[in-house]
Amino acid sequence: MKTIILSAEDIRTIVTAVGLDTLMDQTIDALYTTCRHYDDDKYTIPIRRGFNYHHPKPGLLEWMPAMQNGSTASLKIVGYHPANPVEHHLPTILSVGLTFNTETGHFIGLLDATFPTALRTGAASAVASRILAAADTKVLGLIGAGAQAISQLHGLSRVFEFEDVLLYDIDRSVSNSFRSRAAGLQLHGARIKQASLVDVCRNADILCTVTSVATGKGPVFQDVDLKPGLHVNAVGSDFPGKIEVPRSLLKRSFVCPDFREQAIHEGDCQQLSASDIGPNLIELVKSADTYTEKRDDTTVFDSTGWALEDHILIEILMHHAHALGCGTPVQVESIADDPRDPYSFLSTEDRFNIKAL
Amino acid sequence: MKTIILSAEDIRTIVTAVGLDTLMDQTIDALYTTCRHYDDDKYTIPIRRGFNYHHPKPGLLEWMPAMQNGSTASLKIVGYHPANPVEHHLPTILSVGLTFNTETGHFIGLLDATFPTALRTGAASAVASRILAAADTKVLGLIGAGAQAISQLHGLSRVFEFEDVLLYDIDRSVSNSFRSRAAGLQLHGARIKQASLVDVCRNADILCTVTSVATGKGPVFQDVDLKPGLHVNAVGSDFPGKIEVPRSLLKRSFVCPDFREQAIHEGDCQQLSASDIGPNLIELVKSADTYTEKRDDTTVFDSTGWALEDHILIEILMHHAHALGCGTPVQVESIADDPRDPYSFLSTEDRFNIKAL
Repeated sequence: MKTIILSAEDIRTIVTAVGLDTLMDQTIDALYTTCRHYDDDKYTIPIRRGFNYHHPKPGLLEWMPAMQNGSTASLKIVGYHPANPVEHHLPTILSVGLTFNTETGHFIGLLDATFPTALRTGAASAVASRILAAADTKVLGLIGAGAQAISQLHGLSRVFEFEDVLLYDIDRSVSNSFRSRAAGLQLHGARIKQASLVDVCRNADILCTVTSVATGKGPVFQDVDLKPGLHVNAVGSDFPGKIEVPRSLLKRSFVCPDFREQAIHEGDCQQLSASDIGPNLIELVKSADTYTEKRDDTTVFDSTGWALEDHILIEILMHHAHALGCGTPVQVESIADDPRDPYSFLSTEDRFNIKAL
Repeated sequence: MKTIILSAEDIRTIVTAVGLDTLMDQTIDALYTTCRHYDDDKYTIPIRRGFNYHHPKPGLLEWMPAMQNGSTASLKIVGYHPANPVEHHLPTILSVGLTFNTETGHFIGLLDATFPTALRTGAASAVASRILAAADTKVLGLIGAGAQAISQLHGLSRVFEFEDVLLYDIDRSVSNSFRSRAAGLQLHGARIKQASLVDVCRNADILCTVTSVATGKGPVFQDVDLKPGLHVNAVGSDFPGKIEVPRSLLKRSFVCPDFREQAIHEGDCQQLSASDIGPNLIELVKSADTYTEKRDDTTVFDSTGWALEDHILIEILMHHAHALGCGTPVQVESIADDPRDPYSFLSTEDRFNIKAL
């Protein structure tokens, strides 16, 4: 009973075969459908927990479990280390995903979750924005132009045809490289432009905050001169004390968290009392027809990153791997002839060699 | 930056090269030394959490994190599915371990933790028993003769020279096969005998409870006719409502949990109030000289299974793997030229192929 190991190369094979856009579309559709038919009896999703530390560098290592009851459980382990790009030439977010059979506990598969984390975060914003953003959305504003900005643009461009993508990053070198990083995306002629923070905010129909702002240093923009029907995807706030959106904007907006308990703890919802917070993503999607009425108001999707999103994409990728014959089966678990002998994976000869040592 | 995947075969190579007994001795020594020098600033070990379910079969899937601050973090995922041996010819406990670099979040290694879980549980009982059990211990009693009984015998036999090993299991076929399963262990002539539950309890100097008793169905023996200086290793109680040791025995004994918060929640300490519970394993080892005075009393080590034990053994096994050149380096994380582009693991050609689809 082996474990399927999907290497980065296997993920590349899958994405190339399936298509990056198709994979994004499948993730958006699966998240929407799963939310639409969500039932507390079908899934068990605890709040994520983690290690948060300041040495040797500021960092966070979290585990995000999700179980489809009676079927599979997934666990994503995700590191957030903002010094990575500059000091190690590594992504801020590194992540791996695991999936288990809940009938036996068997470890079914292991895969990269660095790329899937970006993809599913873009997909989540797409699902929320399709309901809450103005139908005639033409301008996307990005505050922060790093890795997660790419997949925000990707996810949203599958739902909206942007004319302009305006971006601002406190690090000019990051905004300078954005256009070349976005070159692989199908943007239907959208113009990518660097702009001042003020101009990004003033012109955006949809605004995504995708920053590594330090705790206590937010918000990352001001509640001044915004469009009346602005929709914000607040993506970077995922840590106690870390906020991106001005409180006054939150207070006067319709706020939808991905996962309420988590958003209250580490999202922009930290700034709100319970009565200020609207439906979570499940409720939003379940009553999508009702909530489209909110498009004329300012709306905020508080995206802290939700284990259900990871679970869905892990399932999609494992499905494609199976269909394409990707991945390496490895006997990871030490299982041998006798399930009641934890040493039975050793041959008799090995044991007697050991005895003789 | 690759991840080392240790297959079951790699673990077998390590155990064969190092020696099963040497590995047990190293684990006992490392656990003892780590406890002896333990400092809250050195480690962060939260209580484990998990999914507990009844469908499709009763089961438990838990994650056990531990971090050596400023160095590595480990995560063990462990499944407990008591129907496995009979219905799937699989061990009750299946497990995998992962280790991460906390400077970057890089996923360093993956390995089986099924065998290590058994080994470290035996090692923990050995550490506690060396302090709390009578020095002239001659008789080991085992209630439950499954996989964990093997490693209890193994760990304890590295510290004590038993004359008799008495065993009882409610399933006669399990006790019948115990002797052949234990054949690989060096027992210095100890006689392995099946006995009635009453005789196991009456004659034991050290008693290990290693059962899959159902919640609400314990204890698994009676507080009758026990030796005055009996030491109990209560190993099987690791679930809310699951208990093995009679409350009256706990009440009159010196009780040492491996990890207090966890033992109160899911160990035999569930039956006690806080004031009835003695030092945890760290405190026991730190003041080992003082606590050997308790050898004349009845003593209980409430072993729920502790992430520090797993962390230590994962480190030992990764160290041996490195020294022996075992394991397969796999590029799991999708990392490419640009850490700010989550899609940069795709070649330019792949992206343009995708565009062309």
